[in-house]
Amino acid sequence: MSKSTTMNVEVRFGDCDPAGIVFYPRYHRWMDAASLHFFMSCGVPPWHVLERVNGVIGTPVLEHNTRFVKTATYGETIRIRTEVEEWRRKVFIQKHTVTRGEDLLCESRETRAFCVRDANDHSRIRAIPIPEDILERCR
Amino acid sequence: MSKSTTMNVEVRFGDCDPAGIVFYPRYHRWMDAASLHFFMSCGVPPWHVLERVNGVIGTPVLEHNTRFVKTATYGETIRIRTEVEEWRRKVFIQKHTVTRGEDLLCESRETRAFCVRDANDHSRIRAIPIPEDILERCR
Amino acid sequence: MSKSTTMNVEVRFGDCDPAGIVFYPRYHRWMDAASLHFFMSCGVPPWHVLERVNGVIGTPVLEHNTRFVKTATYGETIRIRTEVEEWRRKVFIQKHTVTRGEDLLCESRETRAFCVRDANDHSRIRAIPIPEDILERCR
Amino acid sequence: MSKSTTMNVEVRFGDCDPAGIVFYPRYHRWMDAASLHFFMSCGVPPWHVLERVNGVIGTPVLEHNTRFVKTATYGETIRIRTEVEEWRRKVFIQKHTVTRGEDLLCESRETRAFCVRDANDHSRIRAIPIPEDILERCR
Repeated sequence: MSKSTTMNVEVRFGDCDPAGIVFYPRYHRWMDAASLHFFMSCGVPPWHVLERVNGVIGTPVLEHNTRFVKTATYGETIRIRTEVEEWRRKVFIQKHTVTRGEDLLCESRETRAFCVRDANDHSRIRAIPIPEDILERCR
Repeated sequence: MSKSTTMNVEVRFGDCDPAGIVFYPRYHRWMDAASLHFFMSCGVPPWHVLERVNGVIGTPVLEHNTRFVKTATYGETIRIRTEVEEWRRKVFIQKHTVTRGEDLLCESRETRAFCVRDANDHSRIRAIPIPEDILERCR
Repeated sequence: MSKSTTMNVEVRFGDCDPAGIVFYPRYHRWMDAASLHFFMSCGVPPWHVLERVNGVIGTPVLEHNTRFVKTATYGETIRIRTEVEEWRRKVFIQKHTVTRGEDLLCESRETRAFCVRDANDHSRIRAIPIPEDILERCR
Repeated sequence: MSKSTTMNVEVRFGDCDPAGIVFYPRYHRWMDAASLHFFMSCGVPPWHVLERVNGVIGTPVLEHNTRFVKTATYGETIRIRTEVEEWRRKVFIQKHTVTRGEDLLCESRETRAFCVRDANDHSRIRAIPIPEDILERCR
């Protein structure tokens, strides 16, 4: 059975837009935090530590599909459940399910890849095969 | 032929993450701005004005699918081209194409709806059929 | 003796800039959340509830002075201690002290006022004398 | 006479909070962008280029004092005027004046320093004397 992690988020005043509801890019910030939280819960160090070990600077999103079902506002606590649905050679599909109590608020599937800096051009990044030791910890 | 608008964005230091590239939720902020820019370019007033006319508080995203192709960093100017691919009764599909010169950076399709506050519960919002006058201006 | 509250913040990847450290406007987001957290801990409802009772839409910052002492990065937990140093008739001085373990990271003094919407022009806000019942709960 | 630069900002829906006005940490994002804009207008390269030349990773804020006078909302264009009021050996005082037409919205004085990474501990940064060539370009 695959691992999953959960992360709670307190919704704040500044997360909400003039309609009084969470501005949707905030969900992506939180799901990005939930993505790293998943890896750190599996024993993977934060990227700034990992970079010195194997050059990995993070797991940028290549594609994502997100569905918003209900709205939330500040003063509420929401929960993000995160798991990896599929591990391929160079990418993985990470799924986030955002709930408030019984309510489903948002659901997202992200395609991400472990990336390193290009040796010849420091400003470019490229995907590498998922490192074996990370796969072992997280699968 | 359908209308399209373009909006330029100067990428700033604070838009970038520790990997030195634009943090992807920023693209969603910019595409949300490009979405409103599209409507305002067609002669639709900003939501805080429109709300007093017909109750519309905005066009929340119900679903979106986004693909990231190349990275960008600060000091660069990117361009967002926005159009509506499909108008349905209660929702519309808005497409954003983000480029830097010839490079495609990111592409997104958003399903959005015009929403008003619920008469009985001010904290809830609900979709309405796309207002005729807005349809006429934007199609 | 005056009341004080504390709020923990997990620093996330997306809170950090290309230098790898927390981008300073994030501290202001967190201190704004700590400000509301202070009031809610004293039994004041969130603004969207309070607005229906007495019209108060929040406590905008009129002025602030902030000093940054040490940097922080993602994967770290920081703590914000918040108290009100002075209550005047229409404004109050709220002080936030941000620490990581023993380290002082940042210190800010904010002058804030309770504000309501202008009766004649909904888009304008104006300060009111600090409501007596709020003063009693928080002092 | 000292140099000054101006930068325009289109206020967007997502920059505003549930009160419908610009959430104040956004001003700090914009003033940070205006700070780099000042240097780039004087011919200083963006930090990711400069870092390879002399190690400078940016000009973190050590302290700032900010006063908010009037509010703004989305659909409006604001202007930020930036100048350096004082150059000291290791720090400089940068002043930002934010206006909308004739209205003063916000005013800030920031104490900043040019910083490099610590040679022994890459995760730490430290201030250096303001580089002579930068001083010549900007004064």
